[in-house]
Amino acid sequence: MSPDNPHDHSSCCGGEHHHSDSHHDGHRPGESAEGRADLSGPAESPITVEVTRGSLVESVHRARACIVDAGGHVLARWGDIDSPIYPRSAIKSLQAIPLVESGALDAFGLGDEELALACSSHNGEARHTELARSWAGRVGLTLDDYECGAQIPYDPATAEDLVRRGEAPTAFHNNCSGKHSGFLTTAKHRAERLKGYVRYEHPVQQRILGVMEQMTGQDLFGAPWGVDGCSIPTIGIPLGAIAYAMARIADPVDLPDARAEAVTRIAAAWGKHPFLIGGTGTFDTALMEAAGGAVLVKGGAEGVGCAVIPEQGIGIALKIEDGAARAREVALAALIRSTQALTEAQWARVPQLLTTPLLNRAGARVGEVRAAGGWPSA
Amino acid sequence: MSPDNPHDHSSCCGGEHHHSDSHHDGHRPGESAEGRADLSGPAESPITVEVTRGSLVESVHRARACIVDAGGHVLARWGDIDSPIYPRSAIKSLQAIPLVESGALDAFGLGDEELALACSSHNGEARHTELARSWAGRVGLTLDDYECGAQIPYDPATAEDLVRRGEAPTAFHNNCSGKHSGFLTTAKHRAERLKGYVRYEHPVQQRILGVMEQMTGQDLFGAPWGVDGCSIPTIGIPLGAIAYAMARIADPVDLPDARAEAVTRIAAAWGKHPFLIGGTGTFDTALMEAAGGAVLVKGGAEGVGCAVIPEQGIGIALKIEDGAARAREVALAALIRSTQALTEAQWARVPQLLTTPLLNRAGARVGEVRAAGGWPSA
Repeated sequence: MSPDNPHDHSSCCGGEHHHSDSHHDGHRPGESAEGRADLSGPAESPITVEVTRGSLVESVHRARACIVDAGGHVLARWGDIDSPIYPRSAIKSLQAIPLVESGALDAFGLGDEELALACSSHNGEARHTELARSWAGRVGLTLDDYECGAQIPYDPATAEDLVRRGEAPTAFHNNCSGKHSGFLTTAKHRAERLKGYVRYEHPVQQRILGVMEQMTGQDLFGAPWGVDGCSIPTIGIPLGAIAYAMARIADPVDLPDARAEAVTRIAAAWGKHPFLIGGTGTFDTALMEAAGGAVLVKGGAEGVGCAVIPEQGIGIALKIEDGAARAREVALAALIRSTQALTEAQWARVPQLLTTPLLNRAGARVGEVRAAGGWPSA
Repeated sequence: MSPDNPHDHSSCCGGEHHHSDSHHDGHRPGESAEGRADLSGPAESPITVEVTRGSLVESVHRARACIVDAGGHVLARWGDIDSPIYPRSAIKSLQAIPLVESGALDAFGLGDEELALACSSHNGEARHTELARSWAGRVGLTLDDYECGAQIPYDPATAEDLVRRGEAPTAFHNNCSGKHSGFLTTAKHRAERLKGYVRYEHPVQQRILGVMEQMTGQDLFGAPWGVDGCSIPTIGIPLGAIAYAMARIADPVDLPDARAEAVTRIAAAWGKHPFLIGGTGTFDTALMEAAGGAVLVKGGAEGVGCAVIPEQGIGIALKIEDGAARAREVALAALIRSTQALTEAQWARVPQLLTTPLLNRAGARVGEVRAAGGWPSA
């Protein structure tokens, strides 16, 4: 990474950002801090993702994004990172913290596979659903306990198999079944009422709200919220604060011991089981397999993406203004590439993550999805 | 419609637009014309579509749009309408012109159902595929002649039925099979080589290019183009010129007799068979069924939408910047509503077209897709 790269981590406490205070001072994005570069001024322009076809750019997606370190320093930003956005499934890693911290995971003899599944938005493939089923059995949960709803598996082959066998999908096929297993396991361990665990006021969700406040450094009491696809609350949080929480997973040095231990276990499970996080053909799985543990990524609905780069102690968060998944993927890849966390040889194995070919129904390549000009480069 | 409505058709030749020349003078959007209000100045801001969840606007889509009459007067515009966009499937009505004009439709004893299917992006439901199959039989075409590729039907129930029966989808299930039947029928009627009819240089596509030039008033020689999902060329045309072509379907008075007759037949078929144009649960079908023939609509991929309002002699074209179908639908509904072509009682039967509820996996309403402020109102 060149010395004048705006998110060169090595320069963030003495270089162009003029940070005069200590690296890990608990500064939170969006808050003012003396001696800190003013982050409240006009942000850099949003960055865009182009969809081409033949000789035209046919469609354009606008992205907001930032790269933050565990000291809360915003190393790079594009567009508004201070307004609340819904992080959706991109922060399942944070929602898994109580599962570890409460002791529930260990008490039921669960391991890193279950923990990875708790962080996943999986394809509903056999490996995912069988793990969810065995987990439920171990904890003494039944399908009736799950309040996420049934979902046709994302994986087309698995979905077709179900139809062929005349079977309806269940809550285990829901891409969020691991997260819900985590919620239920924690509630069971703490002898809380299971029914209604998806509701905002239930202890499971209130506990997560507290964890989110601490990890993001935000007061979320009264924060805007909505109901997610799987019926749990999704809380409005500034993009910068979401990236900050990811950075604290990358570098938990400022966290209380129990929380530091929990996020370290979560990060290890997340990085060790890329297939469980997504599945066949998914961006998250492909990128993490290529990265060999150097980067943890997680996408969410409506164009939200997060990444954790442990070796650099940084977190990345982005939001596609219009919510498009195709743009979230190449945008996240472009940002990660700029950090040099993967070698170019690693990227060469997954070129479709940086520039996604568009194929027509006859299988011909007719265009592509790519980061437009103005993006950071490696 | 109030007198100061910016797209009040009745005022377009003497009202605020200061049009001093005759109504039907062949002026084309994007071209200069003396005595005409200057349309090259800064356009009104793009209009947006909001996606809400709980108390936040979660995602935003930007739209460009215009309303044009058959004299080429731009009655209302939002954003850039002069740069080329790919009209995709939204102008299948124009691509069907040679099928009628060449005499092919009549020569093979085909009727308005086949003509509607030529204008459709259908769901691949039984009624669509059976009509495509019978059409092919009547003309002496086989599946091998079709170069659109096979496609899993858009209609989920039909797609599941295929899987259950262990059948693969065919070209008849391709949403464009009617359009391709039209191409093949015209080629057969004119004794042209069928093979390669999807290629830019084939007489079928060149003939359509000529029709598009005449209908849009644009020189399309050298225009940007790409390959569509069904392998045919899609030509870059300014949004204003696409709306102009739609207006000329609404009011063909300036067209040569044979072309006027062709577009009149096409418009009649398009309006008479809403189900053939889309199918169960589709926006185009639902809107046209509600409109009872007063409005013809057609969506295309990547957020393109067109409408024809015969009684008012106007055409509408819009493009969602990011290509989202959910935004194209409510945007097109909002623009059509502003023309008062449907009564409020008619809209009351299809409220989901104006504001689309977002349901989560448990079926709860968690948000909506709606036109943001700044849109024209009825």
